[in-house]
Amino acid sequence: MNTFASYLAGELPKIETCLHDHVATLNPYVKPMAEHVLQAGGKRLRPVLTLLCARALGYSGGDPYPLACSLEVLHSATLLHDDVLDGSELRRGRPAAHTLFGVGQSILAGDALLALANVMIASYNVPPLMVCLSQAILNTASGEVQEIARVRDVTMDMQGYLDIITGKTACLIQSACEAGALLAGASPELVKAAADFGMNIGIAFQLVDDALDYSSPKEVSGKPKGADIREGKLTLPLIFYLESLDDAGRERFTKAFKENTLQESELESTLVAINAGGFVERTRDMAASYIQDAGRCLAAFPTTPETSLLYAALEGMAKRDK
Amino acid sequence: MNTFASYLAGELPKIETCLHDHVATLNPYVKPMAEHVLQAGGKRLRPVLTLLCARALGYSGGDPYPLACSLEVLHSATLLHDDVLDGSELRRGRPAAHTLFGVGQSILAGDALLALANVMIASYNVPPLMVCLSQAILNTASGEVQEIARVRDVTMDMQGYLDIITGKTACLIQSACEAGALLAGASPELVKAAADFGMNIGIAFQLVDDALDYSSPKEVSGKPKGADIREGKLTLPLIFYLESLDDAGRERFTKAFKENTLQESELESTLVAINAGGFVERTRDMAASYIQDAGRCLAAFPTTPETSLLYAALEGMAKRDK
Repeated sequence: MNTFASYLAGELPKIETCLHDHVATLNPYVKPMAEHVLQAGGKRLRPVLTLLCARALGYSGGDPYPLACSLEVLHSATLLHDDVLDGSELRRGRPAAHTLFGVGQSILAGDALLALANVMIASYNVPPLMVCLSQAILNTASGEVQEIARVRDVTMDMQGYLDIITGKTACLIQSACEAGALLAGASPELVKAAADFGMNIGIAFQLVDDALDYSSPKEVSGKPKGADIREGKLTLPLIFYLESLDDAGRERFTKAFKENTLQESELESTLVAINAGGFVERTRDMAASYIQDAGRCLAAFPTTPETSLLYAALEGMAKRDK
Repeated sequence: MNTFASYLAGELPKIETCLHDHVATLNPYVKPMAEHVLQAGGKRLRPVLTLLCARALGYSGGDPYPLACSLEVLHSATLLHDDVLDGSELRRGRPAAHTLFGVGQSILAGDALLALANVMIASYNVPPLMVCLSQAILNTASGEVQEIARVRDVTMDMQGYLDIITGKTACLIQSACEAGALLAGASPELVKAAADFGMNIGIAFQLVDDALDYSSPKEVSGKPKGADIREGKLTLPLIFYLESLDDAGRERFTKAFKENTLQESELESTLVAINAGGFVERTRDMAASYIQDAGRCLAAFPTTPETSLLYAALEGMAKRDK
């Protein structure tokens, strides 16, 4: 276990307690859905990044946990809505909330969690925190709308893909880091460094996710290989693969992909080709380069134990296999 | 046209421009849904209440429209989600957004509008405003969850009904008024008076809506009479009606209502009985009593033209027929 992993393990009980205490304040009709999605676990990456950025930049004020946990509450709200709109039956190996409580209840519980996160953030009386997090939610929703709008859109290129993952994933992770810096009352330069750090790891995080979708066996990841291609999502390994085909091959594949007429055997052979062609590796290489950029952002941070832990977090992220 | 109606007519162009300008900042993938729901019209009651409360309490600072319009943006976000969860085909006589753009897009556009409203509010740098509005969203979502949970629940009494309408409708109108007072920098007593005024008219507003559902002909209201009873919603006219039945009659009706086996002819005769029994009128009488209470809250306000306009708003509300 690297130093970041032990730090996270030490923080987890406090994060869980804070989440639990805030969910306990919800209306009894909303609480069961909120508990269901929050108790499904998750890496709690966002709260721990907020804590580390705040502490690395000298925060020693009051309780930082409600702010840190507000990020996880926001994230959970988006998960409730995502599962409804993807029609996903499972979330982290457990039944998705909408399959147990109904679609309407899940949409509304997501709204309630968005609002709860705002209440948690507002309690700090720091207006830039509100702007930072509200903008993050706006970008997350916009990125997801864009992703849906471009399902099976075979004209998607690297830039279109990066726009989507920046919106749907990286902005919230960026805000987690920026919020920590804002809470610490850091200088504008350091707030920007923290935000850039978060943006880079956010993009890297999604690139690794999208690489794992093509490479990680079900026993490790908990979901079948190739879910994205089946759902019509053009992520980077597939974009690289399409670029590698000759014109005739690309035309044949994109026509079938667009019309959703790919046979199971073609899907399987495409998965094999994407792995064999090194496109998963190229995606992970790109993630590694964003992780390096994230490391460079930390150069502006003071030398503190928490700054070292943020470097350690980068290491773990590069090696992630689930 | 009473003085409130002319004031509203004068403010409408500025409200519409402000709404338009903020929606224009949205990601191009989100904008069409946001424009669709906001251009469907609506009374713009919430923004005008914010403006009037702020001005009645002496606000003469910068531009109050983004704050006022944030309330309409929040309201529109809830409409997008409501239509998805009710499966409504129409909204104010036009196709509901999800029928044109898809369910997923509508859920996410609702999230984006919730976030846009937060960005608009955060721009004022007044932390209590964020708490006030975040709490309102939380209560709105909780009220709606409660309403869904209690569909066809024949044990619903007056208190359960009041809890639901307070959450789903009145809290946001309360916050519209409270936000105006907070913007004006009013004393805690006047902030409370504004909030109480909003709570009372919010409850009255929903009571009138629920009365109109039983009494207003389709040509006036734009929707068929008795939509609530068909959807299994127990609102006050029906609660009064159930109380008026003898034990055997109540048992027969509630069994069929609970199991959703009421025939069209029984529904029709129930609508007639509810109107003939004076239960619509009793609901409107109750609204009138909340409107009186709202008037009493205004006694604490200074004598200003805007305070007179708030009294005029109460008059219009009591007479509303659509």
